[in-house]
Amino acid sequence: MVSQKEYKDIHQKCLSYFEKAGIVLTQNEVEDLEVTDFGLDRVQEMGLQLVVYVNTERCCAKELVLLPRQTCPEHTHPPVGDSEGKEETFRCRQGTVYLYVPGSKTDEPKALPPADKKQYYTVWNEIVLKPGEQYTISPNTPHWFQGGEEGAVVSEFSTKSTDENDVFTDPEITRTNENEA
Amino acid sequence: MVSQKEYKDIHQKCLSYFEKAGIVLTQNEVEDLEVTDFGLDRVQEMGLQLVVYVNTERCCAKELVLLPRQTCPEHTHPPVGDSEGKEETFRCRQGTVYLYVPGSKTDEPKALPPADKKQYYTVWNEIVLKPGEQYTISPNTPHWFQGGEEGAVVSEFSTKSTDENDVFTDPEITRTNENEA
Repeated sequence: MVSQKEYKDIHQKCLSYFEKAGIVLTQNEVEDLEVTDFGLDRVQEMGLQLVVYVNTERCCAKELVLLPRQTCPEHTHPPVGDSEGKEETFRCRQGTVYLYVPGSKTDEPKALPPADKKQYYTVWNEIVLKPGEQYTISPNTPHWFQGGEEGAVVSEFSTKSTDENDVFTDPEITRTNENEA
Repeated sequence: MVSQKEYKDIHQKCLSYFEKAGIVLTQNEVEDLEVTDFGLDRVQEMGLQLVVYVNTERCCAKELVLLPRQTCPEHTHPPVGDSEGKEETFRCRQGTVYLYVPGSKTDEPKALPPADKKQYYTVWNEIVLKPGEQYTISPNTPHWFQGGEEGAVVSEFSTKSTDENDVFTDPEITRTNENEA
């Protein structure tokens, strides 16, 4: 769980990232900024910050913030009901994102997950995204990502987002939003 | 048709708008920036500039630029095949956008279409979008919009975009991309 003190500190950092990226948010969006630690209680290492712009039955857009070297753990968006699962495009706006997807293992990857969690990271084809660069992830495709040394701001364009259906490789992970400070 | 000279001039303006908004584009995106005059040959009055980030079978994201007082003419996104039609969210990033949708007619609207085209503008419920503000348009809903005095940069998040299926109220309009300078 993210403590109130931690939430406030991370919230403030996110606002400065958004300001630097020229991204303007409404007061409601600022207040609703989500900080998740995926239930792992190590938010600086494994966590994600999100502002959801829109999420309808058909499409979704968010801004994501990654703190320096913060990892969003490996997961997939599996088929749900009639839907083949979430498709998402990550577009880097600021900083650097190291994204890992299925494919040839990259030699000397630029990001590593926390050592004690390495067994839960199974895809190692590295995609490096700098500002203006983007990558589209097909449904039901395992992926994980990490911010570079200066963190990152990433726009996500996708089909409907239903976090509760995400499947994480690490069995310890629960994706609940328990951090409303 | 947009002349090469006009295309170059507008292209340059768009790049300065994007720079001011902190939006970074790849070289390919810069080169592919689309300027459309909707076949009306009056691009400064009625036209739109677009960068398409992604457009898959399921979702689409674009950046739009409106020049000062430039109007995107009234149109709808009707059902196509099995799809109920395009749903789109406009999020203002910079400047002001005056958006018109069905509903009570706004007294003294802040934007007016060119006088000789007024009969092709049938919805007059005004939505004003400033940076950080957004509005979602349901499928098959007539709408039109105009940039404010200083123009505007607008992010569009939507379902699949198929310009050729758009239905414009003005019968003179053809939505072709004939402006590759």
